[in-house]
Amino acid sequence: MTAEDKVVGVIGGMGPDATIDFMTRVLRCTPAEVDQDHVRMLVDQNPRIPSRQLAMKGEGEDPGRALAASAAGLEAGGAEFIVMPCNSAHAWENDIRAAMAIPFVSIVDTSVSRARQRAGNGPIGLLTTPGCFAAGLYQSALAGGESVLQTADELEDTLAFVDRIKAGDKSGNVETGLRELGERLVARGAKALIAACTELPLVLDQSMFSVPLVLSTEVLAEKTVALALGQEPLPEA
Amino acid sequence: MTAEDKVVGVIGGMGPDATIDFMTRVLRCTPAEVDQDHVRMLVDQNPRIPSRQLAMKGEGEDPGRALAASAAGLEAGGAEFIVMPCNSAHAWENDIRAAMAIPFVSIVDTSVSRARQRAGNGPIGLLTTPGCFAAGLYQSALAGGESVLQTADELEDTLAFVDRIKAGDKSGNVETGLRELGERLVARGAKALIAACTELPLVLDQSMFSVPLVLSTEVLAEKTVALALGQEPLPEA
Repeated sequence: MTAEDKVVGVIGGMGPDATIDFMTRVLRCTPAEVDQDHVRMLVDQNPRIPSRQLAMKGEGEDPGRALAASAAGLEAGGAEFIVMPCNSAHAWENDIRAAMAIPFVSIVDTSVSRARQRAGNGPIGLLTTPGCFAAGLYQSALAGGESVLQTADELEDTLAFVDRIKAGDKSGNVETGLRELGERLVARGAKALIAACTELPLVLDQSMFSVPLVLSTEVLAEKTVALALGQEPLPEA
Repeated sequence: MTAEDKVVGVIGGMGPDATIDFMTRVLRCTPAEVDQDHVRMLVDQNPRIPSRQLAMKGEGEDPGRALAASAAGLEAGGAEFIVMPCNSAHAWENDIRAAMAIPFVSIVDTSVSRARQRAGNGPIGLLTTPGCFAAGLYQSALAGGESVLQTADELEDTLAFVDRIKAGDKSGNVETGLRELGERLVARGAKALIAACTELPLVLDQSMFSVPLVLSTEVLAEKTVALALGQEPLPEA
């Protein structure tokens, strides 16, 4: 890390395990021999942020204010750009952008961009939660290309597994169930899959699938390192 | 997590992998079913902090100013007490305390307290780095009881393994070498060992040793959760 490198701000805690997974992936994809080679990150590991799934159903407190406060705090602390390893929370991206003057790097745009590379011109399958789906984030980003979407039942089944992962259950049953949900999208024509929930990479990996699997946490980590080390220019704020 | 729970500030990045290990241990020892049950932590994952080992030899920039700035930033961001998962950096504990008005919870005091419980009244063996040793942190905390200390050569050997862990090498050679260094202290009479460097718990665990092993990262994580959840009162600032 040199003086020119950028300080990363991380709106985290959604869930806390997914944030640790993100930090670990950032570490693994940074070329480093000593501590000082690594990327500096200010991490708000904030599980107090209200549930994104409940808010999207109109049943819980709106997380927008807490997300905006987290972003503003990270900027005040010295962050030069912001990332957020939670897909559903991107439904409140506008609240976050309005609260700060530094760039926000979207996990949605980053994941879709990678999936397009991996799928060739084929359809992209979206494995996600009802909250993230209802926000339409990925559907908007995937517009202009073919996609394969989950049914309402499949989305609820995915969330049930995600909630088990959040409760600490990474057993074979969870893994098998999620793999089966992904392979249904392949059976319906998907040539690549996006794991569009940061809990999913805690149990899923490429070896389990018959088509390329884009892990949203992993591609955001790679993008974060490239931006922090100046290998890519920062986007506009 | 309830509104009464305390926000933890973490001066991290020394090394970044050790900070992730600390966060993971905090997560694992928190009773939680959903995100909102977890402890909120503001983490300054700051590998830019100058080398503690070099500074202790008089060869590098003093890390005191960077550590104090990190502490002040975490307090400004809303932290209610501060922990630091790096033993050697505790040599600059006074700079940190002077920079803020919230309590600082020492990994040294926490580890020694646990080691006394585990060793009965027997001698405590100290596995650490030359920088941490030269600062005399653990020797002061262990005064009044028997301890078994490493020779200068053993301290340098420990640091060589620590530097390999920081470079990403967690191979069997590193594990075996460190275990052998620990067992030498046992051979010289230690009834418990303190792994007084937060890189060590990345490769060592209790199963490798013939006496109780106190992992400084683990006991700090347990203490952090107890304080954050109000199971223990915060110490004075």
